Amino acid sequence: MWILRLNMTDRSYSLEDVPERYQKLGGRGLTSTLICDEVDPTCHPLGPNNKLVFAPGIVTGTPAATSARISVGGKSPLTGGIKESNAGTSWAPAVARMRIKAVVVEGMPEEKGKYWMVKLSWDGEKPAVEFMPADGYVGKNLYDVFPALFEKFGKRVHVAGIGTAGEFGYANSGIVFNDMKQRPTRYSGRGGLGAVMGSKGLKFFVVDATDAPGVEYADEALFKQGAKKLREALGEHALTKPKGGLNTYGTAVLINILNEAGGLPTRNFRTGRFEGAPKIAGEAIFENNKARTGKEVYNHACSPGCVIQCSNTLYDKDGEEIVSCVEYESDWALGANCGIDDLDGIGKMVYWCNAYGLDTIEAGDSIAVAMDSGLLPFGDLEGAINLIHEMGKGKPLGRVLGGGTAFVAKAFGNPRSPSVKGQGMPAYEPRAVKGIGVTYATTTMGADHTAGYTIAPEIAGVGGTSDPLKSEPAKADLSRAFQTTTAFLDSTGHCLFIAFAILDIASGFEGMVEEVNGVLGTHLTNDEVVALGGEILKRERAFNMGAGMTTADDRLPEFMKYEKLPPHNVVADLSDEVMDRVFGEM
Amino acid sequence: MWILRLNMTDRSYSLEDVPERYQKLGGRGLTSTLICDEVDPTCHPLGPNNKLVFAPGIVTGTPAATSARISVGGKSPLTGGIKESNAGTSWAPAVARMRIKAVVVEGMPEEKGKYWMVKLSWDGEKPAVEFMPADGYVGKNLYDVFPALFEKFGKRVHVAGIGTAGEFGYANSGIVFNDMKQRPTRYSGRGGLGAVMGSKGLKFFVVDATDAPGVEYADEALFKQGAKKLREALGEHALTKPKGGLNTYGTAVLINILNEAGGLPTRNFRTGRFEGAPKIAGEAIFENNKARTGKEVYNHACSPGCVIQCSNTLYDKDGEEIVSCVEYESDWALGANCGIDDLDGIGKMVYWCNAYGLDTIEAGDSIAVAMDSGLLPFGDLEGAINLIHEMGKGKPLGRVLGGGTAFVAKAFGNPRSPSVKGQGMPAYEPRAVKGIGVTYATTTMGADHTAGYTIAPEIAGVGGTSDPLKSEPAKADLSRAFQTTTAFLDSTGHCLFIAFAILDIASGFEGMVEEVNGVLGTHLTNDEVVALGGEILKRERAFNMGAGMTTADDRLPEFMKYEKLPPHNVVADLSDEVMDRVFGEM
Repeated sequence: MWILRLNMTDRSYSLEDVPERYQKLGGRGLTSTLICDEVDPTCHPLGPNNKLVFAPGIVTGTPAATSARISVGGKSPLTGGIKESNAGTSWAPAVARMRIKAVVVEGMPEEKGKYWMVKLSWDGEKPAVEFMPADGYVGKNLYDVFPALFEKFGKRVHVAGIGTAGEFGYANSGIVFNDMKQRPTRYSGRGGLGAVMGSKGLKFFVVDATDAPGVEYADEALFKQGAKKLREALGEHALTKPKGGLNTYGTAVLINILNEAGGLPTRNFRTGRFEGAPKIAGEAIFENNKARTGKEVYNHACSPGCVIQCSNTLYDKDGEEIVSCVEYESDWALGANCGIDDLDGIGKMVYWCNAYGLDTIEAGDSIAVAMDSGLLPFGDLEGAINLIHEMGKGKPLGRVLGGGTAFVAKAFGNPRSPSVKGQGMPAYEPRAVKGIGVTYATTTMGADHTAGYTIAPEIAGVGGTSDPLKSEPAKADLSRAFQTTTAFLDSTGHCLFIAFAILDIASGFEGMVEEVNGVLGTHLTNDEVVALGGEILKRERAFNMGAGMTTADDRLPEFMKYEKLPPHNVVADLSDEVMDRVFGEM
Repeated sequence: MWILRLNMTDRSYSLEDVPERYQKLGGRGLTSTLICDEVDPTCHPLGPNNKLVFAPGIVTGTPAATSARISVGGKSPLTGGIKESNAGTSWAPAVARMRIKAVVVEGMPEEKGKYWMVKLSWDGEKPAVEFMPADGYVGKNLYDVFPALFEKFGKRVHVAGIGTAGEFGYANSGIVFNDMKQRPTRYSGRGGLGAVMGSKGLKFFVVDATDAPGVEYADEALFKQGAKKLREALGEHALTKPKGGLNTYGTAVLINILNEAGGLPTRNFRTGRFEGAPKIAGEAIFENNKARTGKEVYNHACSPGCVIQCSNTLYDKDGEEIVSCVEYESDWALGANCGIDDLDGIGKMVYWCNAYGLDTIEAGDSIAVAMDSGLLPFGDLEGAINLIHEMGKGKPLGRVLGGGTAFVAKAFGNPRSPSVKGQGMPAYEPRAVKGIGVTYATTTMGADHTAGYTIAPEIAGVGGTSDPLKSEPAKADLSRAFQTTTAFLDSTGHCLFIAFAILDIASGFEGMVEEVNGVLGTHLTNDEVVALGGEILKRERAFNMGAGMTTADDRLPEFMKYEKLPPHNVVADLSDEVMDRVFGEM
């Protein structure tokens, strides 16, 4: 196993044996540890001293179900703290099959505005890297560039890269990966890591894993036993089974559910219910597609080996693809949060975010804050699409919007910025769902639902139940439990959506741990993996503190403390002490 | 003596007796203490829970020389920390003569976009306040609005207010006060307090001190004795005497001096020397004016009772006024730092900053960062003026630029942001003048030269000498000494420029302390006033820590640590430990 270093100052590379300290890590655990070890937390995120780390998960590249996640880490230009953002893509197992534990991108070219491509392939004995200019691929729509790249490098390659958002250095710029149809749709979207990649002059990172030897197992039998248990659990759970909730309605199945709960943030978090919710819900996507294609369209996998298959395609009235995929978060951010109930219009916005390399959550939040500030009315679809183009083309307004939610709010002098640590909030109203509010406030990542998805027990009844509206200190314990487990889950390479099955079905959790032990040769218990997750979080938090954060950064925005959210008329009322319990008692 | 509270939520006011805790305070000491006592440091600076405090200095309103300063305090939208920004204006003694220790502006109207005026006058027994709509005065050039206000309220009033920058909520927006010719040119410019005033719906604050009783003295004889000593020292010192350095060449006398020292930041802090320096120096202003008006024009007072009289007027080729006044900081920020050597052009830029209510330092830094990011070339005068109009008119690019230096850098993904705590640096290169670098890094205010003006010994040979290029731990002690003394000086109501005379002439310092004792009835010694200054700083720092700052915020920008500054090819090399000594040993 190797760590591959790309030096973008002089465009050289090196392969290193994996130091013992990193041998049992993968995914988020590895990216975060490498960043903590090698990056000065006070460095400028877009300066020469930041690094960008890619790491497949521990079981990525194996046949473990739904495990093709790539973790990307660095110091975030959005939050100023550490960032791990992961995506499901064939790029991840391709790297893992080359026995590369992590890729560390370092340095910075002297020449500005010049971009490079890297091609990683297997030379028969080891990985080999080639650098080449990216001229001709810069400043363009990724939907045009991706086919050209696959044309140039062949159909068997896998592509990571940035769009114009990353070239412009936006704090809202993701890193894109190809999906199963080689479209530019899978994103490590959050936290502006696209700008970090862009600051290093790295436009595309192409991987050809042909002839790569594949992942090594310490105990293949144990791995297989675990993989079988997890696969069975996933096939059994109502949310993850074939033609189950996610496979049928996609993640947007949550639109109606959160709306019902009064926790669907609407019009820049002014209310918790959107009258247009049924028109943009997962059920509507399914029914529309059925009417437009003449058949029931179940969802597909975003990456190889996924059995959950929650990625949808949105079809227009002629049965042509508008975009794939409209996830709950994108649907909400660009829809309900902007007061927009036009599903096709939302699909177009998702398309353009993908085309330019923007995170859809941050984009939707940013547009909603602009609407809240009077720049355009809520519900103005054409105006919102125009703002996405302003961003993608680097126009002046785009420079404002591309800075993200808190940045836009500052530009307009608007105190109603639904953000924590500078990162815009996802699709759950923290005043109406108290546990997720604790996660938003305290996670090392800035407002992030995936960091500790208490929605499972608070809304979905998965992994127990917890009253979403109840302001109680136990919410800190709930969030902590989810945050620590997630930090480990994000290290395995599995998608977060296995959480439903492993929380409700004990053998599923057991299976995940056995897979990991089978690959690594460890003997981790269930408790130990949670403890490991806690260690990762503590490391990440130490980085943030080194960067200058304090507990004052572990707070929900002030306006949520004095502004009552309809329909439940609730405020953010968990005390600072409760927030501080998350890490205080870790 | 009273504290006057204006409640902008319901437009009511109240007069309170001054609590004992505040009776011996004034100016900065009072604004900062009130903010620390009454404002939650985690509140949003533009939300309903921030407050804006105006306080004349302890001796303001008396005949003490050069003492007509008003301190304005609040939580800064630029730095996120506490802010005190003071200005010299007749508005200050007018408030003081009404025996108002401080005005606290609180709350926030529900209706957005509606602005109000306040008129404060003496009703025979006490101050009285009237609220009225500011309709008709909003969205306009302050040079047009000020004459209309004096027309409406009479020639004897004094005016404080905001321009469009404050209406738009820019982090770069000052609070304007009238000068001696009732022009809108005296600014509490730094830190975005104009946006705080704007967020409260307060557009203008008009004071009519007719029949006000005047300042009370505890010991008038002592006061007079002190005032005489200080006045004599000011009249004697080479920099402050009539037809001395400042009265002849204005503060821009520093252009050539700093250029010679290699410490004049040029083209967004890329070098320490500007080839066009002689063309924009104070000497050039004096010679130009002489040629254009046919006579030697010495400078004038910005506020009543000033004996230094350093405010210049810039005349065009027809002998008509372009603007008053072009200070060193404005001249540098909009000139050398933008690579612009056209003095008349710089004058026009200052005019437009005044017209819109922008801080000239922050504006110049912001434009320079935009130039450094490729938006327009260095030296592009017309382009720079256009950017000021974009700001003043609230255009998209203006929203970017109006956010200040660090904000612009973030919008363009440019790590070369010459700022500390989000505030743009003034006209001294911290790599070439080490002591001022310590002040920039550690002051509670964000990069600010006035907070601890070590330039006196490092460049001007005033108050001793200290080699500007020498990186030594003693720079921390030097900066601390200046910061503590300044915090007291800013409380007296005197202009910082009395520092030259009180540092070099012992009786001058003595005189300042006697003035204060004479007004307050205290028996403060020289050492005690410095200690009092230290107390103010500690209070301010506690606010900043409560707002979430740490020692990581007490640092110069990273790029200055790896990028060598010509001509001396120096980097920022004082250690973190030295920076931390400033407050660590206070």
